[in-house]
This record gives sequence, C-alpha cells and structure tokens, in this order.
Amino acid sequence: MSLIVKKFGGSSVANAEKVFNVANIIIEDYKKGNDVVVVVSAQGDTTDDLIEKAREINPDGASKREMDMLLSAGEQISISLLAMAIEKLGYPVTSLLGWQAGFLTDSHYSIARIKRVDSERIKNEISKKHIVIVAGFQGINKYDDITTLGRGGSDTSAVAIAASMKADLCQIYTDVDGVYSADPRKVKGAIKMDEISYDEMLELATLGAQVLNNRSVEMAKKYNVELEVRSSLEPTVRGTIVKEITKMEKTLIKGVAKDNNVASISVVGLQDTPGVAFKIFNKLAQAKINVDIILQSVGRDGTKDITFTVPQSDVKTAVEAVDSLKDSLKFQKVTFDESVTKVSIVGAGMESNPGIASKMFEALFDAGINIHMISTSEIKISVLIDEKYADAAVSCVHDKFID
Amino acid sequence: MSLIVKKFGGSSVANAEKVFNVANIIIEDYKKGNDVVVVVSAQGDTTDDLIEKAREINPDGASKREMDMLLSAGEQISISLLAMAIEKLGYPVTSLLGWQAGFLTDSHYSIARIKRVDSERIKNEISKKHIVIVAGFQGINKYDDITTLGRGGSDTSAVAIAASMKADLCQIYTDVDGVYSADPRKVKGAIKMDEISYDEMLELATLGAQVLNNRSVEMAKKYNVELEVRSSLEPTVRGTIVKEITKMEKTLIKGVAKDNNVASISVVGLQDTPGVAFKIFNKLAQAKINVDIILQSVGRDGTKDITFTVPQSDVKTAVEAVDSLKDSLKFQKVTFDESVTKVSIVGAGMESNPGIASKMFEALFDAGINIHMISTSEIKISVLIDEKYADAAVSCVHDKFID
Repeated sequence: MSLIVKKFGGSSVANAEKVFNVANIIIEDYKKGNDVVVVVSAQGDTTDDLIEKAREINPDGASKREMDMLLSAGEQISISLLAMAIEKLGYPVTSLLGWQAGFLTDSHYSIARIKRVDSERIKNEISKKHIVIVAGFQGINKYDDITTLGRGGSDTSAVAIAASMKADLCQIYTDVDGVYSADPRKVKGAIKMDEISYDEMLELATLGAQVLNNRSVEMAKKYNVELEVRSSLEPTVRGTIVKEITKMEKTLIKGVAKDNNVASISVVGLQDTPGVAFKIFNKLAQAKINVDIILQSVGRDGTKDITFTVPQSDVKTAVEAVDSLKDSLKFQKVTFDESVTKVSIVGAGMESNPGIASKMFEALFDAGINIHMISTSEIKISVLIDEKYADAAVSCVHDKFID
Repeated sequence: MSLIVKKFGGSSVANAEKVFNVANIIIEDYKKGNDVVVVVSAQGDTTDDLIEKAREINPDGASKREMDMLLSAGEQISISLLAMAIEKLGYPVTSLLGWQAGFLTDSHYSIARIKRVDSERIKNEISKKHIVIVAGFQGINKYDDITTLGRGGSDTSAVAIAASMKADLCQIYTDVDGVYSADPRKVKGAIKMDEISYDEMLELATLGAQVLNNRSVEMAKKYNVELEVRSSLEPTVRGTIVKEITKMEKTLIKGVAKDNNVASISVVGLQDTPGVAFKIFNKLAQAKINVDIILQSVGRDGTKDITFTVPQSDVKTAVEAVDSLKDSLKFQKVTFDESVTKVSIVGAGMESNPGIASKMFEALFDAGINIHMISTSEIKISVLIDEKYADAAVSCVHDKFID
C-alpha cells in the first residue's frame, strides 16, 4: 500500500465527461489499496473567464489580493465537482481548499511561495479511508488572506503535499504521456524518455518545455520527491520518471526545448566603471524580475552595453526599473526586442564534452539561423534567435543530436 | 458617524455596470464618514449555473457538503469583483469570505444556522478605514468545512453582522423600494409602508412576500436590529423601516401576501386514538420539514383525516415520512395536492377584531373563490385556495382592506 499524490490540470477536468475520466483514474489506484491525494487546477477556461470579469471591472488591473480572492474560486469549483463524481461512483471522498489542506504561503499575492503544508487534515481524511481532493494553486498567508502560487502553481501544490507527507510517488498528469526529447507535436522523431534527472527536467521546464512547472521540479529535487509525468488521456501508459540520477556515464542530450516567452533588453552606452552591472541587476531583483541570459559587450567610445533576457510579461516593469537608474548611471538608452526565442539543449555530462556546443552551433549555421546570444551551464546550452526561426531551430538541433 | 451594514442580492451585482452602481451606493455612505460593511450574494445566475454543473455530474444529487463547497464559490467571485470596483473608484476596501469574516455555523450543510459571528477581522479592517465586503450565505462549521445558509441566507448574514457589531442600521437592498401592502407588480393600489413591526414583517416574509428572508427578520427581532428595505435601482428613495413597534392602537391590515410554494398533504382514514397527530408531526419534525397549516377532520366510520401544508420542495420527503408510519398507524392512504396557494392578510391587533376574518372570507366569496383550509394567528389570517385563483384572491382581499 502506497501513498500516491496525483495532479490533474485544468484541461483534464474541463467538462463532466473529463471529470469522470479523472475520477476513474483516481479510483483505479484507490481500489488497489493505495491512499490517494489528488491536486486539481481550475476547469478549462475558468481562470481566463474570471480574469476577463476582473478586466471588465478594472482594465488597469485590480489589486493582487482581490485577484487572488477571485481566481481561487476556480479550483473551489473543480474540486467539488470532482468529489461529486467520485461520490457518484460510490467511493468516499473529501474536497479541501488550500487553507483547509494546510497550505501556508508568504504574502506575495499572485506569485506566493509555499512556506509549509500542515497536512494534519489530509492525514485525518486518509485515516478515514477517504480519497482527498485538494485545490491546487492556492494557500493562505499569515493574515488568513487567500494567495495564489502563480501559473502552473498546481504542480507545486502537488509536490509540496508529496514532500510534506513523504508520498511514495507524485504523478503529474498532462496531455502528453511523458517527457520527450523535443515537442512531439512539432518535431518528428522526438523520443520519450523513461527517466530523467531533476536537473535535466529543471532545465527543460525553465526553457519552456511546458511539461512541468520549474518551481515544482526544484521542490521535488529539494525534498527528493519522485515525480512521474503521464497522460490523463492514456492512463495505462507508463510515463517519464523524474528522480535523482547520480552518475551519468556519457553525455546524453535529453531534450531540445524552445521558449517563446522571452524578450531581450539592452542597456546601451553605459560607463565602463565598477558596480554598473550590480546596480542594474540589483534593481531588477528588487522588482522581482527573473533575468536569464546576460551578455556584456564593449560599446563605442569606451562605453559598454549590457543585454539580458526576461520573460515577456516582465518587459515593461524591467524597462521601467532600468530607466529609473538613468540619472545615476548616465547610460544612453534602453531598448528591447520581443521577437526572439530561446532554444536550448539539455543533458548531463555536457561540461566534459566541449564538442556539444559547436555541434549545436553547426546545426544552426547549416540551417542559416543567426545566433544573438549564447548561455551555457553544466547541463544546458541556450541560444537566443529570431522568433520566426524557432521551430526550424528546434528541428535541426534535434536531428543533429537525437536519432 | 454610524456603522451601517448593507446587503445586496445577486441581481444587484449581475454585471459590471450593476457592480459599479452598487459600489457608488456604498461609497456615498462611506464619504459621509460612516463605517460600511457590505454583504453580497452571488452574481445573477451564478448559483443556478453551479447547480447545473453539479447536476451534470450527479443528477441524483451530490452530497450537501460538496454542494456547499461548490456554491460558496459564487459569493467569492461577487465579493472580489465588487471590491475591485470600489478600488477602481479610489476607495480602500477588503473583501472577506464567510470564514474570514468569522461566520461560525452548525453542521447542517445547505441549511446551516449561524452560531456566532466573530467580527474581530471586520473590526480590524474598519479600524483601518476600509470598506468591508463580506460573502453572504456562507460560513464554516467546527470541522472548518464550508456551510451555506440556504436560499435567502445573505439577508441573515447581514443581520448577523449588524447584531454582532451593534450596527446602527442594516439596509437590505432589493428590486422594490420598500415593503408594500401587496405585490405592487400584481395589485394596483398597493401601498408602500414607512414602518412595519418585526412580527408583521415576519408574517409577510413567511407568507411568501419574498422581500426579506424570514430567518433574517427573526434574528433582527431577537437582537433588535433596525432594518431598512430599499431599492438598489433608486438609491435615493427612502425605504421601509422594520423595527419594534410596541403599541398598535387599532387593527391595521399591513399586507396581503400569497405563497405558491405550498402543497397540502392528507393522511386519510386514521384510527381515532390518542397520539396519532403526535406521531405524524414528530416524524415530520425529524425529517426537518416545516409544517404550516394543520387541519383535523372527522372521516367516515369513526376514522379521522389529518391534512397539513408543507413547502412544495418537501412534498416527496413528507409523503415518504408519513408512509413509513403506515404499518404502525394503520391509516388508509396519503394523498397530496400541489395546485394550491396560500393567501394571507397580516396586521397587528387582529385578535381583538373578529370581524376581520369574516371580511376576508366575504371578499373571497364575492369573487367566487372556494377556501380549502383556514389558519389564524394573532396577526395573520391565512387561507388555502386553488392555485389558479391566487392573483384574483390577492386583488379582491387587498381591495377589501386597503384603499
């Protein structure tokens, strides 16, 4: 008998028929004698519908506290409907909101971080042999106000429960049946992996493979929670296991990913004095902007330029943050470009194989694709290219490395 | 400076335009220096939409706990949207769910009773000069599970807050501008009252005047909360005050009301032995069915018949409850009739004016309407008639008493 945490996204519970499909997957595991805790997102387009309602009231953007109050109603609807389906099929079940399930977060509304999960209530329901359905994406802060964890937060909710309860397995159900070496809808010959390490998955998640939210993978790594990515449409197909894999014998490119949600920002004509980079990136950190690739180049007349990438949603805030330093740093101007894409290859053992990077660049050169920026880490190599070449770049790189 | 509690129903906040209308009404009072606590129901048809979602999953009826979990999402949406509108207009505001506002109830899901309101959080927000928006209709029980108060429960939520905080006034906004002597949409010459006593209002509410939920009036009476019924469409028009009115000099018929949501049930051929009525109505009380008019008549062959009225929604349960006694009570059969309506007149001082009842019966006789059952109390006289004569009966009785 195991304790299994299962997470289903909004598309998996979009209508009554799909809700019953998910209910049956849950019951299958329950009938085998397992304890089952399920995390669910809001149904299909509920979140978007609620955002639209808020926009009608205040097109300039409502306060984040009230947005969280509004959006968290979405999971409240989906958990109760899923519980009703399980009831209807004759099994004992209890639905729990974030606060009832013990999710305590910090007070950064809309992007809250989980501080801890007091899983007493969940354990209590499990001891009564109830299936437990928990609202993903939400918690409460120390003021008893509702917070949400940001897009994809339900993955994090699931991993947090699995960590807090030392679950045997945390299954993340998506619309693909595992983690592939590239997007299988775009790249012919993309290969499904049986296993992948946290670090590799983390790079893929960060790079926009969109299978798992990166915070959830980070948390899974930290608490050593074994994840399985699998499909709610093909529930009998084994998925991809994400776990600690200690020793990699040889370089193995695990995947090629692209991220369109990226923009590059350039600060042009900076004085070449110490502390300039620190001041810029400190300012951006204060504005809670995640900076990814950073490039510094020598400009004209003894000045220098700094270029970096941010998520597209943060461009406005980032440009404003940098602009506020114009008087003290005396740079010339700030420019930005949203028509770029980041393409990356991920795989362990890369640092000991210098040939990998040049092989990737060769593939892009052969396809006539220009590289704007390059970033490397122990297990990944990323390049920034024009958005219009994104799919072509993923294909040619994939073909080069994976047969 | 006063503390004012305002309650707005679902139709008052059905869309963005109406939400802003309500926001402006609230702000008017806030700008005068008042502390304002607002109770809101779910938007327009939200509750019905959610019920439909539940019905798709389980047409036989989901558990009441999960229904309450589902339905309470409706007010969560409306309170946050109203708060966003007030924010947009530039005023400080905080929305609170039932549990955040301190609503503790018993565990009768779907028809929970408020045990107390711990209004600390509301007071805290008010001390910061925030307008407070509270989700009506909902609370939590001792297990931290969400409960709802039943249809019309938001009125009760508003009165409970007013009582707990000793508010100066509790305003219930509806789509009519006060309490009338009859339904003004149906009866020409219906008169709006400036004041009405709790007892009179209670009779009108119970009888289906549908202006105020009767539990809310009972609670207002118990805690001496002054109520005002007024219109959200004509916010400058003074409404009807409901309060303790100690001395009535003369009989004053305050209103004529009808209640279509009524059915009569007859238990035919009962043994004429002691305890029969007790056993029947004790069984119905256990099934939590509110019995209204009761009539006992002598049947044929030394047997007797008992006829009583219940809300139409309880007919099935009531008939089953009575049927379960068939073996022990040995009656002949149970019949029921849903095509009936209760028409009542309400007014203080009735008991000292025996002519009132006969005047009412005369009006019905003149209109050719047959009376099936009669019930009287100190301040009301009710008759049960065929449903098809309902409007005609209200009109002729109204014309007889009110000019």
